Amino acid sequence: MEIIDGGVTSPRGFKAAGVHSGVKYRSLDLGMLYSEVPARAFVGYTSNKVKSAPVQVMMSENSPFLQAIVINSGNANALTGRRGIEDAITMKKVAASELKLDPKTVGVMSTGLIGRFMDMHKVKYGISKAARELTSGREADAFLAEAVMTTDTIKKEVAVRIRLTDGTLATIAALSKGSGMIAPHMKVLHGTTLCMVTTDAVLSEKFAKTWGEILDDSMNMVTIDGDQSTNDTCALLANGKAGGKCADDDPIFIQALQKVMTDIARKIAIDGEGATKLIEVQVQGAETKEQARSAAMTILNSPLVKSAIFGSDPNYGRIMMALGNSDCKFRIEDVRLTIKGGDMEVPILDSGAPVFQEERSVEVVRMAMDNKEVTIIVDLGAGSASAVGWGCDLTYDYVRVNAEYAS
Amino acid sequence: MEIIDGGVTSPRGFKAAGVHSGVKYRSLDLGMLYSEVPARAFVGYTSNKVKSAPVQVMMSENSPFLQAIVINSGNANALTGRRGIEDAITMKKVAASELKLDPKTVGVMSTGLIGRFMDMHKVKYGISKAARELTSGREADAFLAEAVMTTDTIKKEVAVRIRLTDGTLATIAALSKGSGMIAPHMKVLHGTTLCMVTTDAVLSEKFAKTWGEILDDSMNMVTIDGDQSTNDTCALLANGKAGGKCADDDPIFIQALQKVMTDIARKIAIDGEGATKLIEVQVQGAETKEQARSAAMTILNSPLVKSAIFGSDPNYGRIMMALGNSDCKFRIEDVRLTIKGGDMEVPILDSGAPVFQEERSVEVVRMAMDNKEVTIIVDLGAGSASAVGWGCDLTYDYVRVNAEYAS
Repeated sequence: MEIIDGGVTSPRGFKAAGVHSGVKYRSLDLGMLYSEVPARAFVGYTSNKVKSAPVQVMMSENSPFLQAIVINSGNANALTGRRGIEDAITMKKVAASELKLDPKTVGVMSTGLIGRFMDMHKVKYGISKAARELTSGREADAFLAEAVMTTDTIKKEVAVRIRLTDGTLATIAALSKGSGMIAPHMKVLHGTTLCMVTTDAVLSEKFAKTWGEILDDSMNMVTIDGDQSTNDTCALLANGKAGGKCADDDPIFIQALQKVMTDIARKIAIDGEGATKLIEVQVQGAETKEQARSAAMTILNSPLVKSAIFGSDPNYGRIMMALGNSDCKFRIEDVRLTIKGGDMEVPILDSGAPVFQEERSVEVVRMAMDNKEVTIIVDLGAGSASAVGWGCDLTYDYVRVNAEYAS
Repeated sequence: MEIIDGGVTSPRGFKAAGVHSGVKYRSLDLGMLYSEVPARAFVGYTSNKVKSAPVQVMMSENSPFLQAIVINSGNANALTGRRGIEDAITMKKVAASELKLDPKTVGVMSTGLIGRFMDMHKVKYGISKAARELTSGREADAFLAEAVMTTDTIKKEVAVRIRLTDGTLATIAALSKGSGMIAPHMKVLHGTTLCMVTTDAVLSEKFAKTWGEILDDSMNMVTIDGDQSTNDTCALLANGKAGGKCADDDPIFIQALQKVMTDIARKIAIDGEGATKLIEVQVQGAETKEQARSAAMTILNSPLVKSAIFGSDPNYGRIMMALGNSDCKFRIEDVRLTIKGGDMEVPILDSGAPVFQEERSVEVVRMAMDNKEVTIIVDLGAGSASAVGWGCDLTYDYVRVNAEYAS
């Protein structure tokens, strides 16, 4: 597997564009992804009961093939009633007309403020402009990546090139936005993370199950704030332009896609609103995978754990408090807790009580926490299931960003 | 019902003390509550799977009568293994010996840092001192209230006097601490909120069910951070000194106790770590009470909702996002959302979309949010069940307090 400097247009046959439509004051706010041929589409959507208009429209159509996706930032088109649905349908229609496609093969995604109607005059103008500017290459990737950003501070792209088992050279690339309102729990029908994954490998409809499993271990294990968005959508488009055999069960392909999605998940966590640190929680020795997931997510969502890590405050009791509130089963005497940071790996618990009791020895924990990436390893000693999740610290800047978002 | 300037020693036969034992550097850190006669005890404990040593000890004894409670702040005696259990038992024994009681009739509670062993030398000294200083009156109430505080900034006391149905004059009083790690879900066997409620009314063991229901509607509907403590304990002591008939089913008594517990719950929310505003969420028209509770708590726990209210940022879409992540059922078209603050009451939703779309009209929402107390009213239009919960905003000070707690 070769990690390449690439983006969503690196796989053969994909083009992209990002333009300024005027929904936002200044920055790019409307993007488009296009495949020269219809691509098999696997799409995961938010499980929030309040779903944005674009999510509702895409879920009801459930198209097995997509050839383009139109996406805007600045307005989530959520909580917009019947008018919002009409606007999402119009976005598809206008894009389809510009690209000479069947509207059913055009996907739509939105992100931004909830509860405001779209300014369709601007959006229509943007779609026409984007359709004319579709092209391949790193500049096109960058324009699309920028057009989908809201409070994001970094572009989130990953691309890998692989030689499949049958000898075919294929590429997988992913682009995601997402910085706040991030706790996706996306379920595949056929995460407001909006995520587009492109590949030129050949996939059949049967790949949906594997895609769901990969999402569960990657995007669905990221949490910034525990707040699942109304708009989460993650679309994998496979246009088959690489040729070769169907890669559904090719371990090389699956492993490469897992790598791409895990990297994207980590990038989302690193760029959490106001975040200064990435927190990775590894849960081992759980009775079931579901319990391991619950333990990881409960620790990652605890504001007390998150703010302690922000301050490198060695208050590890909070990690155990959070663990105790999760849905996992364990005997406290069997639990092993380790905190890793930089080149330090500090064991915390012994037989249900912390190893460190003295101020001086607690300093070791503080030193491990005082790193850009802090890893919490919990071994429950109850079974053999495991899970890994990603989150970030809770900072002054998180509060600042979210106390004045709509203003 | 008369609200009086009183505390836990206002009901007849109760005494209290609060002293400095040295667990904390400077402030009062050890308290004691005492009843002249054994009092029927109804105790609710945390449902966190990681339970502090005092909680484990009290749950295993499950004493139907208590005559004293010893309580310390500065150290939670949680995550302290076998040694912690022994220390909690020692606290009971020392207090029993000083007061000449059976250790089974002495309760124990702790709050403070998790994961450090108790300095029992200091604690024993404090218990002896407190036992000698037991007395009644507002000064005693105040010393005990101060001894249980951690990050609390205000004392949380409520007292009412009532004339029961049989003519008996009875008093109910409550004292609570709790500012962070607050999302109690306390279950009665016979909410680290530590809460002591005293009354001189006569109660039988059958009152446990009613007490559980009152806890569910008061303490268990408060959330500061969604993090349920390892130490939550809420004890109601009824010593019967007022005489008269058993008040188990007396609506006057039940209503007065509800009032006391609701007031205490609100005080905890107002004094949430770093809080500048009280948020009350009223959910109406739910299918079931459980769904109404879930809706209220999910909204109150959303960091995006909490930080928007801190900044008076009219981002009401976040309230609906949170509602959509709760366990309650509704059709978005049927939901009515209202935000109240000061003397303003602003309707938000109409047929699934916000009433306000223009910047100028959104200003009305900002004005309502710019108050010390903000009420969010959600009518789901799905049934007739309801629930009320309390929380607070998420502020810079919350982050500050919790980034340097152990330091």
